[in-house]
Amino acid sequence: MRKIRYRVAMSLDGYIAGPKDEFDWIVTDPDVDFGVVFKQFDTLLIGRRTFEVMAKHGNTAIPGMKTIVFSRTLQQSEYPDITIVAEGCEKTAATLREKRGKDIWLFGGGSLFQSFLGAGLVDTVEVEVIPVLLGEGIPLLPSPAKHAKLKLTSHNVYKSGRVSLQYAVKESTYKVRAV
Amino acid sequence: MRKIRYRVAMSLDGYIAGPKDEFDWIVTDPDVDFGVVFKQFDTLLIGRRTFEVMAKHGNTAIPGMKTIVFSRTLQQSEYPDITIVAEGCEKTAATLREKRGKDIWLFGGGSLFQSFLGAGLVDTVEVEVIPVLLGEGIPLLPSPAKHAKLKLTSHNVYKSGRVSLQYAVKESTYKVRAV
Repeated sequence: MRKIRYRVAMSLDGYIAGPKDEFDWIVTDPDVDFGVVFKQFDTLLIGRRTFEVMAKHGNTAIPGMKTIVFSRTLQQSEYPDITIVAEGCEKTAATLREKRGKDIWLFGGGSLFQSFLGAGLVDTVEVEVIPVLLGEGIPLLPSPAKHAKLKLTSHNVYKSGRVSLQYAVKESTYKVRAV
Repeated sequence: MRKIRYRVAMSLDGYIAGPKDEFDWIVTDPDVDFGVVFKQFDTLLIGRRTFEVMAKHGNTAIPGMKTIVFSRTLQQSEYPDITIVAEGCEKTAATLREKRGKDIWLFGGGSLFQSFLGAGLVDTVEVEVIPVLLGEGIPLLPSPAKHAKLKLTSHNVYKSGRVSLQYAVKESTYKVRAV
């Protein structure tokens, strides 16, 4: 079955973006082959806030990827290249999993991850730890939330100091919360 | 020169303890030789709040370690086994570095790390990443604070899924704040 994989870059102190959505601290690493990463996915799941940051930088669609944005306020007619869904994460996940396809990239932000994890819908958490302390910002997983056990399935350490850690979600005791 | 090393266990989402100071999620790993770790240090630096959690569990002193607790309220006469300092971190660090000795373990909590990092006094950040998402708790580094660049110097991945990451602090742009 297609997996739902939360894959993000993170500072050592657990932030996926700076307090003003900065991502300039996520240095490009020539040793990381993003082509190989992108080939594993055909669908992106994006929260409304993260999508607005992407749109501000002119990125609203990635070729070859179906982009699904969770929002009750964005208008579908204004964004013909993406799919806007106002429904909960359970229904979207069920619809996607009924179809064959590549894996599904839970792109962020943290609140969307919180909702999917809460509903027991996340298969893997894949973090690229960047060698920096941000001190503040958008957390990997907003609090409060109950804990989830993980199993380290693979890892990679790059010359730049970037550390890639891939975990399977073993157990989630999160409460279900509507997106 | 003796190094000041912030060495802690951390959940993947950046917490060093649960919201009620829980540390039961830090599973003992038979592959980690704590004797080797302890041999590298002869001094512990502990914040008042962390010390009170330790004292509640009956741990106020570790044999062979000089324990320094930062507090303006604890009474030295009540704790003959430890040294209580009310002064700022700069003075304590300078005094310790004048003397020869083993490395200095900045034991926590996060607020004490924030103060030492802010004063440019931390040499290394050494994190044992435990395969769990806590969702809430005591952060590795309380926010807000400016960022610090790190350099990965070594790493170790254990069978249990525990990942040990050791970083040198390259650059700290933190503002100095009194302890």
